[in-house]
Amino acid sequence: MNQVGTVFERFRKARKDARERAALDQLLDDARQLMTERGESNSIAIATRALEHYRHLGPEATQQFFEVLARDYDPDPAEVLRHAQQYAETRSPDALIELGRVADPPRQALLRRLNLAPDGTGTLVAMRARLLDRLKHDPSLRAVDADFQHLLSSWFNPGFLQLVEVDWNSPAQLLEKLIAHEAVHEIDGWADLRRRLEPDRRCFAFFHPALPGEPLIFVEVALLEEMPGAIAPLLDRKGEPNTAADRFRVAAFYSISNCQPGLRGVNLGNFLIKRVADRLKTQFPRLKTFCTLSPIPGLAGWLAKVQKLESGRLKPAAVAALQAGLEYLRERYGKDWSLLATPADEADARTAEGKRLETDRQLLQRLCAFFLLHTAPGDSRGSDPVARFHLNNGARLERINPAADLSRKGIRQSHGLMVNYLYDLDEIESNHEKFSDGRVSASRAVLSLF
Amino acid sequence: MNQVGTVFERFRKARKDARERAALDQLLDDARQLMTERGESNSIAIATRALEHYRHLGPEATQQFFEVLARDYDPDPAEVLRHAQQYAETRSPDALIELGRVADPPRQALLRRLNLAPDGTGTLVAMRARLLDRLKHDPSLRAVDADFQHLLSSWFNPGFLQLVEVDWNSPAQLLEKLIAHEAVHEIDGWADLRRRLEPDRRCFAFFHPALPGEPLIFVEVALLEEMPGAIAPLLDRKGEPNTAADRFRVAAFYSISNCQPGLRGVNLGNFLIKRVADRLKTQFPRLKTFCTLSPIPGLAGWLAKVQKLESGRLKPAAVAALQAGLEYLRERYGKDWSLLATPADEADARTAEGKRLETDRQLLQRLCAFFLLHTAPGDSRGSDPVARFHLNNGARLERINPAADLSRKGIRQSHGLMVNYLYDLDEIESNHEKFSDGRVSASRAVLSLF
Amino acid sequence: MNQVGTVFERFRKARKDARERAALDQLLDDARQLMTERGESNSIAIATRALEHYRHLGPEATQQFFEVLARDYDPDPAEVLRHAQQYAETRSPDALIELGRVADPPRQALLRRLNLAPDGTGTLVAMRARLLDRLKHDPSLRAVDADFQHLLSSWFNPGFLQLVEVDWNSPAQLLEKLIAHEAVHEIDGWADLRRRLEPDRRCFAFFHPALPGEPLIFVEVALLEEMPGAIAPLLDRKGEPNTAADRFRVAAFYSISNCQPGLRGVNLGNFLIKRVADRLKTQFPRLKTFCTLSPIPGLAGWLAKVQKLESGRLKPAAVAALQAGLEYLRERYGKDWSLLATPADEADARTAEGKRLETDRQLLQRLCAFFLLHTAPGDSRGSDPVARFHLNNGARLERINPAADLSRKGIRQSHGLMVNYLYDLDEIESNHEKFSDGRVSASRAVLSLF
Amino acid sequence: MNQVGTVFERFRKARKDARERAALDQLLDDARQLMTERGESNSIAIATRALEHYRHLGPEATQQFFEVLARDYDPDPAEVLRHAQQYAETRSPDALIELGRVADPPRQALLRRLNLAPDGTGTLVAMRARLLDRLKHDPSLRAVDADFQHLLSSWFNPGFLQLVEVDWNSPAQLLEKLIAHEAVHEIDGWADLRRRLEPDRRCFAFFHPALPGEPLIFVEVALLEEMPGAIAPLLDRKGEPNTAADRFRVAAFYSISNCQPGLRGVNLGNFLIKRVADRLKTQFPRLKTFCTLSPIPGLAGWLAKVQKLESGRLKPAAVAALQAGLEYLRERYGKDWSLLATPADEADARTAEGKRLETDRQLLQRLCAFFLLHTAPGDSRGSDPVARFHLNNGARLERINPAADLSRKGIRQSHGLMVNYLYDLDEIESNHEKFSDGRVSASRAVLSLF
Repeated sequence: MNQVGTVFERFRKARKDARERAALDQLLDDARQLMTERGESNSIAIATRALEHYRHLGPEATQQFFEVLARDYDPDPAEVLRHAQQYAETRSPDALIELGRVADPPRQALLRRLNLAPDGTGTLVAMRARLLDRLKHDPSLRAVDADFQHLLSSWFNPGFLQLVEVDWNSPAQLLEKLIAHEAVHEIDGWADLRRRLEPDRRCFAFFHPALPGEPLIFVEVALLEEMPGAIAPLLDRKGEPNTAADRFRVAAFYSISNCQPGLRGVNLGNFLIKRVADRLKTQFPRLKTFCTLSPIPGLAGWLAKVQKLESGRLKPAAVAALQAGLEYLRERYGKDWSLLATPADEADARTAEGKRLETDRQLLQRLCAFFLLHTAPGDSRGSDPVARFHLNNGARLERINPAADLSRKGIRQSHGLMVNYLYDLDEIESNHEKFSDGRVSASRAVLSLF
Repeated sequence: MNQVGTVFERFRKARKDARERAALDQLLDDARQLMTERGESNSIAIATRALEHYRHLGPEATQQFFEVLARDYDPDPAEVLRHAQQYAETRSPDALIELGRVADPPRQALLRRLNLAPDGTGTLVAMRARLLDRLKHDPSLRAVDADFQHLLSSWFNPGFLQLVEVDWNSPAQLLEKLIAHEAVHEIDGWADLRRRLEPDRRCFAFFHPALPGEPLIFVEVALLEEMPGAIAPLLDRKGEPNTAADRFRVAAFYSISNCQPGLRGVNLGNFLIKRVADRLKTQFPRLKTFCTLSPIPGLAGWLAKVQKLESGRLKPAAVAALQAGLEYLRERYGKDWSLLATPADEADARTAEGKRLETDRQLLQRLCAFFLLHTAPGDSRGSDPVARFHLNNGARLERINPAADLSRKGIRQSHGLMVNYLYDLDEIESNHEKFSDGRVSASRAVLSLF
Repeated sequence: MNQVGTVFERFRKARKDARERAALDQLLDDARQLMTERGESNSIAIATRALEHYRHLGPEATQQFFEVLARDYDPDPAEVLRHAQQYAETRSPDALIELGRVADPPRQALLRRLNLAPDGTGTLVAMRARLLDRLKHDPSLRAVDADFQHLLSSWFNPGFLQLVEVDWNSPAQLLEKLIAHEAVHEIDGWADLRRRLEPDRRCFAFFHPALPGEPLIFVEVALLEEMPGAIAPLLDRKGEPNTAADRFRVAAFYSISNCQPGLRGVNLGNFLIKRVADRLKTQFPRLKTFCTLSPIPGLAGWLAKVQKLESGRLKPAAVAALQAGLEYLRERYGKDWSLLATPADEADARTAEGKRLETDRQLLQRLCAFFLLHTAPGDSRGSDPVARFHLNNGARLERINPAADLSRKGIRQSHGLMVNYLYDLDEIESNHEKFSDGRVSASRAVLSLF
Repeated sequence: MNQVGTVFERFRKARKDARERAALDQLLDDARQLMTERGESNSIAIATRALEHYRHLGPEATQQFFEVLARDYDPDPAEVLRHAQQYAETRSPDALIELGRVADPPRQALLRRLNLAPDGTGTLVAMRARLLDRLKHDPSLRAVDADFQHLLSSWFNPGFLQLVEVDWNSPAQLLEKLIAHEAVHEIDGWADLRRRLEPDRRCFAFFHPALPGEPLIFVEVALLEEMPGAIAPLLDRKGEPNTAADRFRVAAFYSISNCQPGLRGVNLGNFLIKRVADRLKTQFPRLKTFCTLSPIPGLAGWLAKVQKLESGRLKPAAVAALQAGLEYLRERYGKDWSLLATPADEADARTAEGKRLETDRQLLQRLCAFFLLHTAPGDSRGSDPVARFHLNNGARLERINPAADLSRKGIRQSHGLMVNYLYDLDEIESNHEKFSDGRVSASRAVLSLF
């Protein structure tokens, strides 16, 4: 760029900065005014103005706004302390009410009032998404984020959500969003989507009345005669749909995707799966099995890094054997375990090499079972997030499937393995409780691997 | 009742008591379980069960349930104090998050989880209505009620409400509810309702997605050529509708009624009036005036009881004159002021008696203006609730109308007077601010009465 | 009226006549122009204009318009004859097409083109209603009416009709029309209607897409445990609704009413009953019996006037006995048979007088059965129109109910008797065929009366 | 295929033939029964059965069915003749009604009754499509087709049609049908479609209530600032949509496509264009111009074949000059006129060759104008069907556009030329009348080409 250009650029940037600064100033003014409002009478007008200013902020001004939120909208520590003492002394309802008033972060009051604006909810969800981006670099925003999560969880209460069945008769606009947000098994255009909406496939989404036309989360289901052991046939665009609805016995949840990054930490998936299961049960009384066909995104990383296997559940001898097996596999296959991902073929059984490969594959399955059986509740870094999600929902670890996902991603993440989690509606409650106490429910088939 | 009957009755009551006690025990069990739930996974099922048990409680068991809520679901004072100190010392986000966790009343968490049940919101709104009944007799429930109000205000955020226009094409089921809930000017059956839905009348209601088919609040509007000075012509069932829509200049809100006692204290009316005004403005660009024709329920009581008039606004001489006038009226008319409610007629002007009556009527209007001009913000017992509502919304005291409501209720409450409050969309914000500072906005016409 | 008034009136009438004449002239012009239109390109505009003019016609001008339709829009007899000969000679497709072109009354072409206007269909249905009024006095309009009926039957094809379930959630506007049009058992206001829309009552209506908001015909159904023998309990406003839906075994059609006089002769009721039966069958698989509880509007008149009973079905002795019975009743009760309408009570059995009364009531039932059993298909004047309608639909004469309708109308029309017609879906077809051949299907119970 | 295979094939075919024969026999039985039905009581059941049988017919049996329709369902010539004579003699309404009864082809009565079946209309439309296929080879079916067209025109009366705006929010199922049926400018997948549904494009379709989900015909419109002179910019997938709605002045209908081959001859396009124009006029009051950008499918063929130009409108000298020009072009360019289709570029003006090319292009436009100006109403083989359609609708020949459609099809059909027809709502009626009398309305610009 020549000099004139540079000067001009600098000028433009300066002007833009000035505009943003002005918008930020006005936003902060509006925020202050919202907080002094008694009775909320003008709140809608002020909130509308405030969010309009917010939408003009660039990245820097946004960060500054978040910093103000973190700094100036905390409860007053002295006040809180004073009322906490009063409450501890009197235990009276009035003292408690007063305590609530001063301990409730002013930030929450502010966000609640911003939410009065038309499209307030949508804007706040988007604001949270930007906040989460910043949060990675700036832990001082943690309390701000906690307030967001607290409020969004209340506003996105499952009782307020609408379950919508998505099919080929749904608006193209909505279907386009599904294509964009599918996170598990990418949808490759309209023909691909159409296969997933044939009569032996189902798709359901949650909507919130304040975000019309915006799906929050959706799940894709295959109606089958048997529990599926591989993903490819479910996605196969040329596969003939099974129209014999009276032969459906299994509903397999094969993909679940969030559409709103700003709602992270707001529990939606669990409720979605259960409401969909209820709905399908009513439509197809012969359905017996509700399960998933799930990826294991944490497996390959764990296999590569884990040092010492430990188990409070298996016998030491079994653990030791697995440890030895793991080291053997590492030595034998090095960094490229792709041979283990390929399906067994008939020829394998005839050669020594083939037999050994087959044994190694079974060893890999056992290691996978070990990995999943030791999924920990809570936000433990070591374990698999998909496993944690389903097990915490009350599902059971049902079956490990070899050579189940031969896509590049499937081989990289989990050496081609996938897993079925089973939602047995009668056992969900007790499974969930067991998992909360640290114990993973598993089928006999899985347990017999050891 | 004979002896056998008495025994049988006692037996039935005992059995009923036992059943209720059992339901209460189970409800309390469920509540405890809900609170220990990590991750909310089974919360829907437990909450559904809990509310089912709740619905079986009679008055006594309900009272006991509320007492448990008040006693066992307070935050732990020691914990709160400890974290308040920690927060005061460190001021760290983590300390604040922890403080929030322990200071947030467990009651709110419980109510939030009960709200997960299908129809949870409706049941909690009904529960609050029962709580409000109890609260009159049992002030120890105040903190419980504060938690309800806090949550309901969040859930019934105006951004989540749908504005629905009600007309003669609406479901009969909905119209029937309007007939039942109209609180200001009773609707006497379907023919009466129909008049209020003719083309020169409008009716709007707020709905919440979690309470389908249940109006929360509704407002009735008359579209007129001039600001109305009396209620009877607006309600007249035989009145010919004005179909010349291009001549509408005034939208008069003549009735606003809440349908959900459980939502007391949740601000809905203010938002409703403003959204309706916006909507009408778009439909009829020629509308110039948005006003009410409102009752003055507190006037007659005030006139009967007030001792000494005081004013920070009027000159002492004016106040003294009014004081004298009030005493004169009391002496002259004693307990029955109904003569003052009747409209002036031509004959009055001709007799001494008639002239004096007319003067007394004007005196009554001045006293009314004084009363309304001194409406205080906040929940002051002395002033008129309708005035407080509209003035706090930012309306202006526009005109006092004599002989405006000659129904028995109108004469009893306010000696037949009614008032127009004016919603001038450009002034709402500043009027509201003035009122928050204790100053009532009034038209020149009203001010010139002194 | 004084003289000036009379003059003014005469002037007004003259002006009105002139305006109508002008409208008629323009309507006739438009009609001519519509007929010359090739390709229909401007037809919508012209038809819209024409119907606008039509709506300004008073009774006289309307009659003139109908006369023009009758006179000027017949096919050309010479042309028809020429093409009929050509067709008879050649029997070629082209000759047939040409014949169709000239034999098709220009009137039908005109009506078809008028139907292009927005709201054309509604206006033509209303026009037909006026035509039917005129037709009573002016048989020369018969061919005009035949053309209307031909076209309306085609346009109101059952395949184009929407079956709509009406309930308490339906628009008040629609419910109001039901109240207005109920022809069989008058609906006395909203409370009365509401009883007919409780969960053990159903109401269904047909709509046509070109007449939005206008029901064409509706039927009211009671869901019961047994076939009903009297109308009062079905209409009783205070009757407690039966909410045990799993105990419904009988669907009784107790009222069917046309809303559009202009659609007389267009078969709607038959299709409505059958589609409703199908719909209910799906909703309540346990329903076993579909029947009516019907009035017998022709009975009393027939009993009063019939001279000689004749039957191709009963034995001469039975007929003779009935003839004697009829004469006996006439002699004994003269013009006032109301004693026979009252229900039997216990006391009757004890006195000679009471026993005789009971015998006479049974005689009346037998005469009623005779009357209905000899219902003739076709538009025979002697027989009962309700019987003809249901029997032609394929229903069976199931049961005669004494003291079933004690309203004034019921006693006057049929001495309190009502009848159940049974719609046995398996027999409808054969019953209808039998009836077309002149034989009424009847239950054993009815046949055993002789 | 081996011998066994052949035998098996023969067996299968024989079995299939037998099944079809049986279905045909049953269909013909049902048809006979439908005709004898009095009162239509069982007609729905029989019609449903009949159409079910019809759907099992293969091509041969279908042809036989059509032959039966042609042979056995004609009116009885002797009867028709007798009644025609009677009518000619008496001219009485009754004679006319009787004549109508016998002259109305039984075939129409049969089709009307078949239309009683659920989905009857859809099946009959499909039946007509098959009939039209057969008609090409078998002119004896002409009277059958005339009956179909007569009834379908009545059933698909524009007053019964719903105008639906199609946009990106419409069901994918519907959009897919648009992609399939677009006949003028092929839609190449979803991205292509999406461009045609951006805010500066509109798409409207007609639906009939008896064919839910099935568009009958649709039109695509571009909202522009100027009348378009070429098709490519309108279809350009990468073109930025014009979102300045207040600058739209022109609505250009650039594609109109039928979706139902069975409705050939039923006038839908004319009504569609006019209703869309009305709708757009209301939405965008600033729209001034409603025009098309249309292909000229008949041009190239006419230029290749026409012998002697004749005109009742132009002066003989002008005609002679054009005749000479035509012969010159034929000689100079032979069979490949593609040079004339390419747009002029700047270089052309500088060379002698280029100037000559430009002159030749203008000659081509004049010939095109001549061709279109002499479009004849009626089903004349010589003229352009698109021109006939729009001119008959009352549009005006507005502008000839060179190098307007450079697709292979555009060059082949019309040497790249396209034409704008103008729908001036004030002139439509008179233009249509002129065209009915054989005179094409044209703009001054077009007329000045000669």
